[in-house]
Parts: sequence; C-alpha cells; structure tokens
Amino acid sequence: MSDNATPLHLGQTSSLPASPEEAVLDYVPNPRPQALYMVRFAAPEFTSLCPVTGQPDFAHLVIDYAPGETIVESKSLKLFLGSFRNHCGFHEDVTVGIGERLFNEMAPKWLRIGGYWYPRGGIPIDVFWQSGTPPEGLFLPDQGVAPYRGRG
Amino acid sequence: MSDNATPLHLGQTSSLPASPEEAVLDYVPNPRPQALYMVRFAAPEFTSLCPVTGQPDFAHLVIDYAPGETIVESKSLKLFLGSFRNHCGFHEDVTVGIGERLFNEMAPKWLRIGGYWYPRGGIPIDVFWQSGTPPEGLFLPDQGVAPYRGRG
Amino acid sequence: MSDNATPLHLGQTSSLPASPEEAVLDYVPNPRPQALYMVRFAAPEFTSLCPVTGQPDFAHLVIDYAPGETIVESKSLKLFLGSFRNHCGFHEDVTVGIGERLFNEMAPKWLRIGGYWYPRGGIPIDVFWQSGTPPEGLFLPDQGVAPYRGRG
Amino acid sequence: MSDNATPLHLGQTSSLPASPEEAVLDYVPNPRPQALYMVRFAAPEFTSLCPVTGQPDFAHLVIDYAPGETIVESKSLKLFLGSFRNHCGFHEDVTVGIGERLFNEMAPKWLRIGGYWYPRGGIPIDVFWQSGTPPEGLFLPDQGVAPYRGRG
Amino acid sequence: MSDNATPLHLGQTSSLPASPEEAVLDYVPNPRPQALYMVRFAAPEFTSLCPVTGQPDFAHLVIDYAPGETIVESKSLKLFLGSFRNHCGFHEDVTVGIGERLFNEMAPKWLRIGGYWYPRGGIPIDVFWQSGTPPEGLFLPDQGVAPYRGRG
Amino acid sequence: MSDNATPLHLGQTSSLPASPEEAVLDYVPNPRPQALYMVRFAAPEFTSLCPVTGQPDFAHLVIDYAPGETIVESKSLKLFLGSFRNHCGFHEDVTVGIGERLFNEMAPKWLRIGGYWYPRGGIPIDVFWQSGTPPEGLFLPDQGVAPYRGRG
Amino acid sequence: MSDNATPLHLGQTSSLPASPEEAVLDYVPNPRPQALYMVRFAAPEFTSLCPVTGQPDFAHLVIDYAPGETIVESKSLKLFLGSFRNHCGFHEDVTVGIGERLFNEMAPKWLRIGGYWYPRGGIPIDVFWQSGTPPEGLFLPDQGVAPYRGRG
Amino acid sequence: MSDNATPLHLGQTSSLPASPEEAVLDYVPNPRPQALYMVRFAAPEFTSLCPVTGQPDFAHLVIDYAPGETIVESKSLKLFLGSFRNHCGFHEDVTVGIGERLFNEMAPKWLRIGGYWYPRGGIPIDVFWQSGTPPEGLFLPDQGVAPYRGRG
Amino acid sequence: MSDNATPLHLGQTSSLPASPEEAVLDYVPNPRPQALYMVRFAAPEFTSLCPVTGQPDFAHLVIDYAPGETIVESKSLKLFLGSFRNHCGFHEDVTVGIGERLFNEMAPKWLRIGGYWYPRGGIPIDVFWQSGTPPEGLFLPDQGVAPYRGRG
Amino acid sequence: MSDNATPLHLGQTSSLPASPEEAVLDYVPNPRPQALYMVRFAAPEFTSLCPVTGQPDFAHLVIDYAPGETIVESKSLKLFLGSFRNHCGFHEDVTVGIGERLFNEMAPKWLRIGGYWYPRGGIPIDVFWQSGTPPEGLFLPDQGVAPYRGRG
Ligand SMILES: [Ca+2]
Ligand SMILES: [Ca+2]
Ligand SMILES: [Ca+2]
Ligand SMILES: [Ca+2]
Ligand SMILES: [Ca+2]
Ligand SMILES: [Ca+2]
Ligand SMILES: [Ca+2]
Ligand SMILES: [Ca+2]
Ligand SMILES: [Ca+2]
Ligand SMILES: [Ca+2]
Ligand SMILES: [Ca+2]
Ligand SMILES: [Ca+2]
Ligand SMILES: [Ca+2]
Ligand SMILES: [Ca+2]
Ligand SMILES: [Ca+2]
Ligand SMILES: [Ca+2]
Repeated sequence: MSDNATPLHLGQTSSLPASPEEAVLDYVPNPRPQALYMVRFAAPEFTSLCPVTGQPDFAHLVIDYAPGETIVESKSLKLFLGSFRNHCGFHEDVTVGIGERLFNEMAPKWLRIGGYWYPRGGIPIDVFWQSGTPPEGLFLPDQGVAPYRGRG
Repeated sequence: MSDNATPLHLGQTSSLPASPEEAVLDYVPNPRPQALYMVRFAAPEFTSLCPVTGQPDFAHLVIDYAPGETIVESKSLKLFLGSFRNHCGFHEDVTVGIGERLFNEMAPKWLRIGGYWYPRGGIPIDVFWQSGTPPEGLFLPDQGVAPYRGRG
Repeated sequence: MSDNATPLHLGQTSSLPASPEEAVLDYVPNPRPQALYMVRFAAPEFTSLCPVTGQPDFAHLVIDYAPGETIVESKSLKLFLGSFRNHCGFHEDVTVGIGERLFNEMAPKWLRIGGYWYPRGGIPIDVFWQSGTPPEGLFLPDQGVAPYRGRG
Repeated sequence: MSDNATPLHLGQTSSLPASPEEAVLDYVPNPRPQALYMVRFAAPEFTSLCPVTGQPDFAHLVIDYAPGETIVESKSLKLFLGSFRNHCGFHEDVTVGIGERLFNEMAPKWLRIGGYWYPRGGIPIDVFWQSGTPPEGLFLPDQGVAPYRGRG
Repeated sequence: MSDNATPLHLGQTSSLPASPEEAVLDYVPNPRPQALYMVRFAAPEFTSLCPVTGQPDFAHLVIDYAPGETIVESKSLKLFLGSFRNHCGFHEDVTVGIGERLFNEMAPKWLRIGGYWYPRGGIPIDVFWQSGTPPEGLFLPDQGVAPYRGRG
Repeated sequence: MSDNATPLHLGQTSSLPASPEEAVLDYVPNPRPQALYMVRFAAPEFTSLCPVTGQPDFAHLVIDYAPGETIVESKSLKLFLGSFRNHCGFHEDVTVGIGERLFNEMAPKWLRIGGYWYPRGGIPIDVFWQSGTPPEGLFLPDQGVAPYRGRG
Repeated sequence: MSDNATPLHLGQTSSLPASPEEAVLDYVPNPRPQALYMVRFAAPEFTSLCPVTGQPDFAHLVIDYAPGETIVESKSLKLFLGSFRNHCGFHEDVTVGIGERLFNEMAPKWLRIGGYWYPRGGIPIDVFWQSGTPPEGLFLPDQGVAPYRGRG
Repeated sequence: MSDNATPLHLGQTSSLPASPEEAVLDYVPNPRPQALYMVRFAAPEFTSLCPVTGQPDFAHLVIDYAPGETIVESKSLKLFLGSFRNHCGFHEDVTVGIGERLFNEMAPKWLRIGGYWYPRGGIPIDVFWQSGTPPEGLFLPDQGVAPYRGRG
Repeated sequence: MSDNATPLHLGQTSSLPASPEEAVLDYVPNPRPQALYMVRFAAPEFTSLCPVTGQPDFAHLVIDYAPGETIVESKSLKLFLGSFRNHCGFHEDVTVGIGERLFNEMAPKWLRIGGYWYPRGGIPIDVFWQSGTPPEGLFLPDQGVAPYRGRG
Repeated sequence: MSDNATPLHLGQTSSLPASPEEAVLDYVPNPRPQALYMVRFAAPEFTSLCPVTGQPDFAHLVIDYAPGETIVESKSLKLFLGSFRNHCGFHEDVTVGIGERLFNEMAPKWLRIGGYWYPRGGIPIDVFWQSGTPPEGLFLPDQGVAPYRGRG
C-alpha cells in the first residue's frame, strides 16, 4: 500500500505499471467516514494473459466496496487493473486476487468482486468473491451483468 | 430547511440557485401521514464539476424515501439538483451529500440514493447510500438502473 | 362499496363515472376462498389532472392483492380507474388513495400498489404503497416496471 | 389420476381431450427421488373461453414444482392444458385450479403456478398461486415473465 | 391557424382547450429556414374517447416533420394533443386527422405521423400516415416504437 | 363479403363463428379516403389446428394494409381470426389465405401479412405474404417481431 | 431429392440420418403456388463437427425462401439438419452448402441462409448466402439475430 | 474421478469421450483454498438424445459452485459435457445427474445447476438442482437466463 | 477555426470555454485521406439552457461524418460541446447549429447530427440534420438511439 | 501475405506476434469460390495503445467480407488482431488500416469494418470503412452493435 500523503496519479499522466506487483494503489481519506455506503467500479476494459497458452484473456470486472477510513483513488485503480496486461494468471486466481489485494490494502468495511470472463472453448467462466457477509444496512444492488448466452 | 408556510417554487418560475448552499428545498405536509409508503425520484439530468479538472461530470440519480411528516416538493428538488451545475465535488461526496441533506432536513422514516455516474477513463463509479435498514413492511423495488457495459 | 348481489358492470356497457367518489366497485365472491394466492392488475392507461396546473398527468399502475372473501370485478375496476380522468390530485395522494380504497372496501388479506408516473420537469415520481408485510407463503413476483432512463 | 403402469401418451399420437375433466395426466416415477430439485414448465400456448362472453382468452403459464415420488409426463401435461380449449372459466379460477389439480394428483414437495393473461379492456390480470412456502434449500429462480407494458 | 406575432402559450400557464376545434396551434419562424432537417415529437401521453362505447382510448404518437418557414411551438402542440381528451374518434380518423391538420396549417416540406394505440379486444391498431414521399436528402430514422407482443 | 349497410358486430356481443367460411367480415367506409395511409393490426392471440396431428397451433399475426374505399371493422376481424380455432390448416396455407381473403374482399390499395408461428420440433416457421410492391409514398415501418432464438 | 408422391417423414417417427448425404428431403406441392410469399425457418438447434479438431460446433441457422412449385416438408428439414451431427465441415462450407442443396433440390424462386456460429477463440463467424437478388415485391424482413457481443 | 497429478487435457488436443461414463474430469488444486468464492460456467452448447424418440435435445446449462480443495479444469468439463452427444436421457435425469456427479467427485463446498432445455411440443422444461442451502456469505448472483416466451 | 499547426488541446488540461463562440475546434490532418470512411461521435453528456425559462436542458447527441482533408480532434470537440453549458438556445437551433458549424469549419465530405433531447412537458423533441444525401459507397449504420417511450 | 501452401496457425499453438507488421495472415482457398456470400467476424476482444498517452484502448470490431479466391484463416486473424496489443495508433487509423490490409492482401470481392471503441472522456468514437459499394445481390445484414448510451 502507498503510504505517501500525496496521491501519485491524481491529475498526472502516468505510464502503465509493468506488473501488478509494481502497481501502487493510492488510498485517500474517505470524504464521508461516518456514513455506511457503497462504491461500485465497472471495469469492462480488463485483459491479462492465459498461463497455459500465453494468449490474451478479457474480462468485465465489477468491484463493490463499503469504504472504511480510505477510498481507492480511481486513476490508480485504473493503472492497477491495466498492469495485468502482461500478467499470466488463471481466471479464478486473477479475480479473487484483485479482490483480496484491494481488501487487504484498503481495509474497507466489506468488498466483493465479480469477474465476467469472455468465453474460451464456448464455456465462459464467471468468478464471484466477497470478503464476508455484507454489513447490515448497506444499500447493495445486484451487479446486473448479462449472462453469456451464446448465439441466437 | 425552509420553514415558510407557502412553498417557494410550486407553480412559480424560479431561476437556478447559484450553489447547493443557496438552494432552498420546500417540504410540504405529507398528504398520507398515516401510511408507510415510498416515493421514488429518477433524476437522469444531473451534472456537476470535477474538483480536479474542472470538467463537467454527469450522473443519473435515483432517490427513494419513506415520508414522515413532510414530503419534498418536486420543483424545489429539481432546482436543488440543478444548483450543482457549477459545484465542484467528488462522486462519493456529492452523492452521499445529497442523500444526507435530504434526510436531515426532511426527516423521513428512511431514505436512500443511488448515483450512477457517466464513465471517466473507462471506469464509471456508482455510489449507493441509505440512512439505515429499510423499515419493516415498506414496498421497496430495486432501482433497476442498467449497469455500465462498455461497447459491443 | 357495492353490496348488491348482482355485479353492476359485468357484461354491460357502462359509462365512465364522473369522479372517483361516484365510481362503484363490484366485489364478487372469491372463487378460490381457501387458497392463498395473488392477483395482479397492470393498468398502463391511467390519467388524472394536476391540482396545480390543471394539466393531464399519466401513470402506469400495477395493483397486487391476495384475495380474502371477495375479488374485485375487473370491469368495475377499469371504470373506477377511468373516473380519475377529471380528478385533480397529487401523485402520492392518488396512488396511495387508490390502494387504500381498494384495501378498505375489499378487505383482502394484503394489497399493494405501484404508481409509475410519466415525467414532469425531467424527474418522474414513482409511488409504492402496501397494506403491510406480505403474508407468509404468498407467491409474490416483482412488478418489473422499467425505471425511467431519460434518453440515450 | 392415472394409476396405470404404462404412460398413456408417451411416444403416442393422442387427440385433445374434450375437457379438463376428461384429461388424464400421467405421473411417472421420479428418476431422482433422493434429490431436492425443481422442474419448470413454460406453457405460452394456453387458451380457454371467457364464461361471460364465450370469447377466447389466452395466457402464458409457468408451472414450477419440486418432485416427490413422481413427475408429470410432459406430453400428458400438454394435452391437459390443451383440454381447456373449450372450457369456460375465470382467470383466477382456471389458474389456481390447474395448480391445485397438479398438486393434489402428483403430490410434489411443493408447486406454484403463474398465469400471465393477455389483456382485456386494457388491464391484463396475472394470477400467482403456490402450495405453501418453498422447501428450504430449493433452487428457485424468478419466473421472469415480462410485465404488461401497453405501448410505446 | 394562429397568425398573431406573439405565441399564445410560450412561457404561460394555459388551460386545456375543450376540443381540437378550440385548440390554437402556434407556429413560429423556423430558426434554420435554409436547412433541410427533421423534427420528431414523441407523445406517449395521448388519450381520446371511443365513439362507440364512450370509453377512453390511449395512444403513443410520434410526429416527424421537415420544417418550412415555420415550426410548431411545442407547448401549443401539447395543448392541442390534450384537447382530444374529451373528443370521440376512431383510431384511423384521429391519427390521420392530426397529421393532416398539422400539415395543412404549418405547411412543412413534409410530415408523417405514427399512432400506436393501446390494445382493445386483444388486437391493437397502429396507424401510419405521411404527406408524401420524403424529400431527397432528409435524415430520417425509423420511429422505433416496439410492436405489441401480448404476453410471455 | 358483407354488403349490408350496418356493421354486424360493432357494439354487439357476437359469438365466435364455427369456421372461417362462416365468418363474415364487416367493411365500413374509409374515413380518410383521399389519404394514402397504413393500418396495422397485431394479433398475438391466434390459434388453429394442425391438419396432420389435430393438435393446436399458435401464431402471432401482424396485418398491414393501405385502405381503399373501405376499412375492415376490427371486431369482425377479431371474430374472423377466432373462427380458425377449430380449423385445420398448414402454416403457409392459413397465413397466405388470411391475407388473400382480406385483400380480395376489402380491395385495399395494398396488404401484407406476417405469420410468426410457435415452434414445433424446435424449428418455428414464419410466413410472409404481400399483395405486391408497396405503393410509392406509403409510410411502412418494419413489423418488428422478435425472431425465435431458442434458449440461453 | 425424394421424388416419391408420399412424404417419407410427415406424421412418422424417423431416426436421424447418419450423414447429410443419406438424408432425404421431402418436397411437397406448394399450397399457394400463385402467390409470391416467403417462408422462414429458424433452426437454433444445429450442430456439426470441426474438421480440424473433431470437436462439436454449434450454430443458429435461419433459412428464408420464396416457394416455387414445392415447399420443403419441415420434419424432413429437421432430420436433414440433424444429419450434420457427425459431419465435419468448416463454417463457410456447411452454411453455404445447406443453402445450395435446398436451392438446387427445391428450385424455389429465391433462397437465403444466415449461419450464426457460436464463438471459437473469442471470434464467432457468421455466414450469409443467398441465391441472388430477391424477387421484386417479396415481403422480406431482416433475420434479426442478435450479434455476438462478448461480455458486459 | 481422475487422481493423476497431471491434468489430462490442459493444453492438449483431446477427442470427445464416447459417453459420460468414459469421460474423465480433471480436478486441480484450488488456487485460493482459503477463500469462499463462486465459479460459474455457462454452457450453451449442450446436446444429448431423447430416450423415447432418439432425436437430439439441446440445452443451455449454467453450473455454479463454491470450490473446496479442488476446482474442475475447464477443458475436461467441456469434454465431459460433450460426451452426452450420443447419450440418451430425460431432461430431469441428465441435469441433476451432471450436478450430482460434479458434486460427488469434486467435493465443493456447494454446487448448483440450471438446465434450460429447448422446447419440445411447445413446452420447454427447465431443471434446477443444488446440493443444499448455499453457504452463508457466498456471493451468489442469479443465473439470469431468459425464460422461454414463445413468439411475439 | 483554429489554423495553428499544433492542436491546442491534445494531451493538455484545458478549461471549459465560456461560450460556443469562444470555443476553438482543432482540425488535424486526416490520417486516411484517400479512404471514404465514416466517424461517429456519441455525446450523451450534453447540456445547454432553455432560452425561455433559463432552466437546464439535456440531450444525447450523435454526430456522423465522412472526413475530407481534416478530422476533428476529439478533445476539442468535447470542450466545444461543453461550452454550451451556459448557452441559451432552442433545441432545433442548437442541434442544427452544431452540425452546420462542424460542417462549415471542417469541410468533410458529408456530416449529419441527431439530437435526442430529454423530455419537457412529456413530449421530447429529436432533431435530425445532414449536409445532404450521403456519398455513394459510404458505410453508414443507423444511429440506433432508443426512442422515448414514457413509462410502463 | 503468406504464400505458403500450408497454413501456419491452423491446429497449432502460436504465440502472439510482437506487432501488426510481424503478424502473418493465412489465406486459404475459398471452399465455395462460385458463390457470392458474406463472412462476418465479431471481435470484441481488441486492444491497442493510445499514441498520445500510452494508455490502453479497447474496441469491439466487426469485419464483413465477400470472399474471392481465398478466405482468411480465423486463427491467423485472431493473432493478427492480438498483435495490436502493444501497438500505438489513433482510432481512425487502426480501424481503417485493418480493413485496408485485409482487403489488399486477401483481395475479396468486397470488405467492410466497423470499429466500436470504448469511451474516452465521455465521447466514444466509432469508425466505419468499406472498400466500395457492396456487390449487387450480396446478403448483407446490419452489424447491429448497440450504440453507446451513457448511463440511466
Ligand atoms: Ca470461445
Ligand atoms: Ca471513472
Ligand atoms: Ca429482486
Ligand atoms: Ca417532462
Ligand atoms: Ca383484463
Ligand atoms: Ca383493438
Ligand atoms: Ca416447426
Ligand atoms: Ca441460444
Ligand atoms: Ca433496418
Ligand atoms: Ca462488452
Ligand atoms: Ca417440451
Ligand atoms: Ca435478484
Ligand atoms: Ca407471446
Ligand atoms: Ca407506455
Ligand atoms: Ca473518446
Ligand atoms: Ca442516458
């Protein structure tokens, strides 16, 4: 986690980190720390590499979380997700890994991630992880991503 | 909160307030004070300014509440929302702030707001806040706003 | 409430009542009085008048109820809804009022109404009322009316 | 109920029964009697007659049940539904009646029916019945039939 | 046709005309008289009365035209359409009549109207009229109103 | 064709004709005989019998025509379509036959019919017939019936 | 082509032909030989084998034709399409081949086929063939199959 | 179950197993064994044979599970599903059987399957099975497969 | 028009111009000057002010053009559209004016604009302008913006 | 262009080419050289880099062509599209460039490409190119990609 007082990326031009390990996420103070609320990021522009074939994989990710003391700065999140561009990983591993890293670094009250992967071999895989049962009283709509339906 | 007996805006031509601080919301007596019911406002015409770049932001807002002794007069709500036109604020702050102001001034039995913001950098942010667990027995459908899906 | 044994409207040509007060609803014996079931009416052809401007308002109404000893005859319901054509009323008042009148006259086990009003000033209002928590064991699907989405 | 060992209709050409009373439903042994699972039939080709006007009525029916010792053979179900072609009945009566007959004859662990009737006079009626609260642990998706929406 | 220099309704509160005959449409100078362009009005809030039964009819109207020297002021159009509230007329007559009156009074380069009526007896009627073949070079998208589909 | 001056069915309660041959269609004077316009009927409640198996078939029909001197009265059209309830016919024959009978009796400027049949054996049949190339200048939108797509 | 007077499959139970070569299509007299009309088959249940990998391929096929002296009997068409179950062929070859065989055997006035194949490697292939420019005056709606859109 | 350390199919070209009995599923170590998460497979390319007629059946399957110590390798899953190509089975039996086999072999924390079968005789069957009540805290979205709706 | 060799805005942070008159559009050399192709901008974040009431108006704009020697730089286009934020104008005037300014300054082979305005008084206005008949051979899909449909 | 008799990629595991220049497309003989038909590729998994910021861009591409003597082998097409992963290019340049390269190398009778790019700054760009007016008699459906609509 970045512990510098000034966000690295906000309002700057930053190049894509070479790997998830090199990516630094910025966490800024939650502007509404007393409130129990939820933030959703829809990230349909995700791509990584298949560890078996080296070919590109694509996914539509949706990340939901209830902020604690910090929120993630959205530009640093974008660069973090972009850093998977040359990273090899299985669908389950990448999806859960993104969720766990954000949860561990940011320490929100709760977090979940849905990974909706493009089909390979005709059978797409979706992966769903959350840090636990959602907090009582959180306003939590469905992620609403259309299921894969083939053709017709 | 406006404590005048006569609504300011109802049936009048009113100009847009210069800022949220200058906007005055009218609260009129609940015509069905004994009933536990819900009112939903869909406000797809919302715009404010980004505090980092000064560029316009857009959002589709949905506000749900269970009236107590008063209801909010819809024209004054429209002017209040319009008063953000030259206001700079982060997505999380603006969305939760609108919800909290309405909740604090109107004192409904319960209130929630969903803010569905247009994408910036490919990753739209949605913000969801509610004043607490909904009252038992309230008829409360999903807000049903389509998730962002990119292209294709 | 109509307490005559013979329905007034069933199989007859009836003219539109001049006001909700003049409208008479027919309640006929529930053909399945032992069963706990639900009846849904979708009424997309509703119109009344705005009490401030006198201009027409339009709404799509959905009424759900669990019959007790009687059910409402659908033709009399249609005439009752049509009787609002020259009636002035606020959205909240009209919607909850229709629900309460049906609930009070018919005495069903449970009733709810969703009023989905056409936009005025860019912000449509939806109103949701129910007579209480639904009975345990009732088959109760969502009303499923599409939210207002503006353009695009 | 048919208690013959051999299904009447399976793999045969059968003519339409003249009335629901004459229709015989086949119940065959549940191939997975240990499992708690659900079977759904979507029957969009249903028609009966209006008892007041004698005119045809149409409905889209969805029947969900959790099999007990038997399952209903689908061809006999089709003929049973087809037997309403010359039967006069109110929407509530026909829908709940089909549900109750299947429930009583087949003795499933649980059953429900949704009857989505085509509009008459602009106001369609939907009827929803179930035999009780669904069994704990049953996989039970929404029936998902689009609500009536008029035009536009 | 209104030949007064000042529009009657623009920025005023006007009551609903009692009949189409009493309604006065305002035509103001075309702000882009050199350009060949098209204006579309979507009017989903239309209602008139059935000349046979006296019962309300509803329609979703879409009006497309290519302005000549004038354009129709939209508030006066709204009041004109609202003036059919107590008017009796057949679907074909009302739809084509609205198109012809606008065409004759406004003298646009071209005009068409689609009337999408709510179903009666299960069979909705749509009516489509245009003043002639569209002018060469006009940008003319489909009206795109969803067809009636019954249930299911 | 009915040549009586008074429509048989308009405003009357009429029983369903026993066969298409016995059904009498009413043609009334075109209220807008000078105009070239189009009328569309959507008839999703159509059923006939399969000549091979005797089992019910279902279809969604859409009929478009450009009136000449007469228009078809919609109640008589409904009864005519209902008269196929006990009629055996192949999809192609029934669809084109309805189109040709209406065209020959009513003598419109032009007519077409789309028959969208429910699937049998997994392969639904749609049938499309028109009386010729549409008249120049007719406003003729697509019928817009969703294609069959199986599941998923 | 089958030249026997009696259809082989109509009303019979027939087993699946082992290959397209062994499949026999039945062509029966066109019941409306004077009319210019179109027949559409939607066949979402198509499968063949990939000639490179031997793995199953799936497609949604839509076949449109304007009958000449004969029409294809739908059960024989179903068996013909089913005969590709163990047939190896490229998408382009299979799709155009089905179209050409039907065109050559049946001699319709015109025929076209759209093959909408399920994705392999993330890039689905659609194949479109027709026998020539459609006949003047044919009623020919779009096939309307949804394009492949990946996820999100 | 396959107990070999090396997956059989991963990165290999494998031919389709002749039957479900001959198909071997590979289970590899769960890369996130500490996490409670869910994996979804959408398999719209499923086909088997009808045990009564021998004709092909088609289904869209969706399989959801919460991994325990292993996950199923997706290529072996694809081959397993493909092995039903020449297998005869009733819809209920095939669907529940696939779910039970995966559950028994893989020993996940929880598993469910939805089988959405293509219509036969106009009435499609959907089958829903799960291994028990889902674990507390699992992120479990609806499967979201569109219900069958006939035509129109 | 900007005639400087270096684009003003590309890769810079620029503040919103105070009015359309002050906005400067950048035109850069067409990278494919030999090709006849089309560029589409979808701009759902448009707002201006109503000249009668001073209240905000919103629109979804779609601009299509076939480049000549230059293309418009997209950031300068965004700032130009943003400059209408405090501009008063009628829907017809604003929409056609944007199209004409782009056409006159950029001198493309062809240009069109569709303005899809949010409803006021229940009747939204759409405005469609193009510079002339599209060039022969241009690939020109529909703009595909959903029509306004009210509620239900 | 690859002029080797044996396709490079068909049935092989190939690594992603480092750039479009290094990518080799395979063209194999058209299996139906006499037929005029169309092949469509939908490629929703496309990504390149922005030449100004170096950040990733994403697009959904649809390529339509009418084969001449060869067709493009789909695996080599996939690798070619994947080779843009580290390529910097403007939307217009990349889209038209892909179309022109395929057209020049493969020499089809006709080709077109639609590039539907993910939004940047709220305004997505779509690019449409074709090699000329489509050949007479080609079956050519719309590409049918949903337009960008923002939120709500
Ligand atoms: Ca694939
Ligand atoms: Ca963003
Ligand atoms: Ca729900
Ligand atoms: Ca409005
Ligand atoms: Ca009704
Ligand atoms: Ca009607
Ligand atoms: Ca069939
Ligand atoms: Ca499908
Ligand atoms: Ca079209
Ligand atoms: Ca997508
Ligand atoms: Ca079936
Ligand atoms: Ca749900
Ligand atoms: Ca239907
Ligand atoms: Ca509507
Ligand atoms: Ca952009
Ligand atoms: Ca919008």
